Amino acid sequence: MENKVIRAALLGMGTVGTGVYKVLKMQQNEMEQKLGCSVKIDRILVRNTEKARAKTGEDPVEITDRFEDIITDPGLGIIIEVMGGIEPARTYITEALRKGISVVTANKDLMAEYGGELLDIATDNGADLFFEASVAGGIPIIQPLKQSLSANHLTEVVGIVNGTTNFILTRMFKDGMEFDDALSMAKDLGYAEADPTADVEGLDAARKMAILASIAFNSRVVFRDVHPEGITKISAKDIEYALEMGYAIKLLGVARNEEDGIEAYVCPMLISDKHPLAAVNDSFNAVFIHGDAVDDAMFFGRGAGELPTASAVAGDVFEVARNIRTGATGRIGCTCYKQIPVKKFEDTRNRFFSRMVVEDRSGVLAEMMEVLAGYKISIVQLIQKESRIKNMAEVVIMTDSVREGDFRDAMKELAKRTCVKEICSIIRVYGKTIG
Amino acid sequence: MENKVIRAALLGMGTVGTGVYKVLKMQQNEMEQKLGCSVKIDRILVRNTEKARAKTGEDPVEITDRFEDIITDPGLGIIIEVMGGIEPARTYITEALRKGISVVTANKDLMAEYGGELLDIATDNGADLFFEASVAGGIPIIQPLKQSLSANHLTEVVGIVNGTTNFILTRMFKDGMEFDDALSMAKDLGYAEADPTADVEGLDAARKMAILASIAFNSRVVFRDVHPEGITKISAKDIEYALEMGYAIKLLGVARNEEDGIEAYVCPMLISDKHPLAAVNDSFNAVFIHGDAVDDAMFFGRGAGELPTASAVAGDVFEVARNIRTGATGRIGCTCYKQIPVKKFEDTRNRFFSRMVVEDRSGVLAEMMEVLAGYKISIVQLIQKESRIKNMAEVVIMTDSVREGDFRDAMKELAKRTCVKEICSIIRVYGKTIG
Repeated sequence: MENKVIRAALLGMGTVGTGVYKVLKMQQNEMEQKLGCSVKIDRILVRNTEKARAKTGEDPVEITDRFEDIITDPGLGIIIEVMGGIEPARTYITEALRKGISVVTANKDLMAEYGGELLDIATDNGADLFFEASVAGGIPIIQPLKQSLSANHLTEVVGIVNGTTNFILTRMFKDGMEFDDALSMAKDLGYAEADPTADVEGLDAARKMAILASIAFNSRVVFRDVHPEGITKISAKDIEYALEMGYAIKLLGVARNEEDGIEAYVCPMLISDKHPLAAVNDSFNAVFIHGDAVDDAMFFGRGAGELPTASAVAGDVFEVARNIRTGATGRIGCTCYKQIPVKKFEDTRNRFFSRMVVEDRSGVLAEMMEVLAGYKISIVQLIQKESRIKNMAEVVIMTDSVREGDFRDAMKELAKRTCVKEICSIIRVYGKTIG
Repeated sequence: MENKVIRAALLGMGTVGTGVYKVLKMQQNEMEQKLGCSVKIDRILVRNTEKARAKTGEDPVEITDRFEDIITDPGLGIIIEVMGGIEPARTYITEALRKGISVVTANKDLMAEYGGELLDIATDNGADLFFEASVAGGIPIIQPLKQSLSANHLTEVVGIVNGTTNFILTRMFKDGMEFDDALSMAKDLGYAEADPTADVEGLDAARKMAILASIAFNSRVVFRDVHPEGITKISAKDIEYALEMGYAIKLLGVARNEEDGIEAYVCPMLISDKHPLAAVNDSFNAVFIHGDAVDDAMFFGRGAGELPTASAVAGDVFEVARNIRTGATGRIGCTCYKQIPVKKFEDTRNRFFSRMVVEDRSGVLAEMMEVLAGYKISIVQLIQKESRIKNMAEVVIMTDSVREGDFRDAMKELAKRTCVKEICSIIRVYGKTIG
């Protein structure tokens, strides 16, 4: 027990940083008994030192706006990076790891692009680099994948990993709201940012899925490998039909380890109302996994927020502290020891839901079915209703499993037929092939 | 990297032992890259050596029926105990730990009674003692509580931790079956043992809750501290009323860290159909927790079965292997550094559901309400229906939060009144006080 007090520096004092500071204070009296040592935040790096000082009050902590004041401190054990963004975080973390200082980060942007590089630097220098908070906020998922579940060959990770879009879809589903109204409500309640692009277009979720897929399949998947698709085109009508068919619509991050490579994408999907992910509502997150030994398992909780995210960061800080105390930093590093190719999105397979407006006359359905049959697409559910437009009918189909590219081609051909007035929506359906 | 191959012994080759053997074989080719070392089962202790040999086939593994052959092997790194029961498991594990050999066990009976003692021996000898598989099968819960969530002050752990009873209650709920029929079905499908007492009386769940409460609240809770109550008295009618009121009935293990002590009990409870635990069906398990930082979180998966349980055991074995490789065994030992008293069951508080047959005449409800008011019990829901018995009515009440002992006294007094013919059921209701 050489290190009774482990000194730490906090980079960033925004929402998460403030939460980490609070949580470590809340744990102050128990740390020593819990860990055999204690962790003390000694230095904080911020842009606005006065704002930070208002949060730390009388605490004897050095607040600075120069990273040099942090990295030249010879006795630092842990650097906690909660600034977000690629730079300067990447440079700071690299410098810290090169000095053998362990790092805890909540930075999904960085880990989804440069995770492999940074983990290698950590390993080369015998340091820890932990990032539990970068995915699904407070939910323990990275550590369970790397440890408790490590004796599994995992074949699937499916997550609701963006709280903003889950809140919006829940309101559309439960209250029949349209997307724009639900987005406004999310903004009013602080669930959506002023510029919600990264959330509603699936980019935030794609970053998290890159990180999850890398860990689950022991093969590096980066942000650009994950096909992102958002929820802006989902309408209340689609949700109504889904409900009628026994499905919810969720923005799912899907990562599959198939025989011919890894599939990784984010898109709105219909999911059976019997699946546990379908019951994950409001701003909650959940990650569902399947492994050869554990079978199905799911992790559910708060995907964001000051204290839940800080819970994950502080849990990592405690792990580093235990490793420092026992001389075991670097115990778990990068686990990507395979090189599995990532499949093109057009080569993935799913079932599809599509809503169309077509001419209301005999022979139209037959023509549509013939086009689909040309691409070997079979239909498992079909609903036809009168349209509000004169002489038009609304047709909703659900297909059996089909290759993405083939379905796209079939839809292009359908769109050219004069009997098809509009293809209103195309949404994938999560789940195994029927029959 | 001194220990390229870590030699292990397996005690027991029943369902879980066979699973562990299989899973380690399945991981054989990846272990070295995953862990920086590999684990090899070199010795197996069983009562029937021929039966075990049939399972290991041509593998060069020593099979013995004498523990001496195991414990005298000087190079063993890990002992995996999957025999179950208190003795001889307790003696064997004690001997192994005293020699500094790390132990992984799936033994809930043992850990729920002697966990504290064994963890102390492990710490004194610098060895690991891991037991993820002792609670909720394949679901990672012990490790996340000790690591990812360790920066939380946890106030509640609620679990569906017995698959047999959850299967029975699901059949009663979904198919309207009575308890006895659902139990027969569970036996036919292999979900219930020939003697189902430990499951249906809540004893198995109580053991698991003792383990979970100890870890969650950092204070030792043993099996006899947990009040157990089973599901044998639940009838299809209770479930029907629960459904009508917006509730499911689940066998819940509840552990709460209240200001005046720890509450720990297992009993069937009504739970709002909006709560994520209400959707945990069939033989699945789930553990729901609440902490000051993480807020709500839930862990869901397979609570039993050969491979899911083996997933947890093998995950622990990998953790020990990592610790041996980095010289960090004993890194996480007993985390019970507090001594919080466990409250008497009669001092716990809950809402209650009760179904009664009463005389069908004016003044009866008033008399009942008066009795309840005498104990300051207020009613939040009441349903009265005609009874099949002449001149009788069936009354179902749901109360606000009340002390267990007070509610019992009130019911005793009600039972004495001539207007009350029968108190058919008393079931607690999970969840916060209304109003």
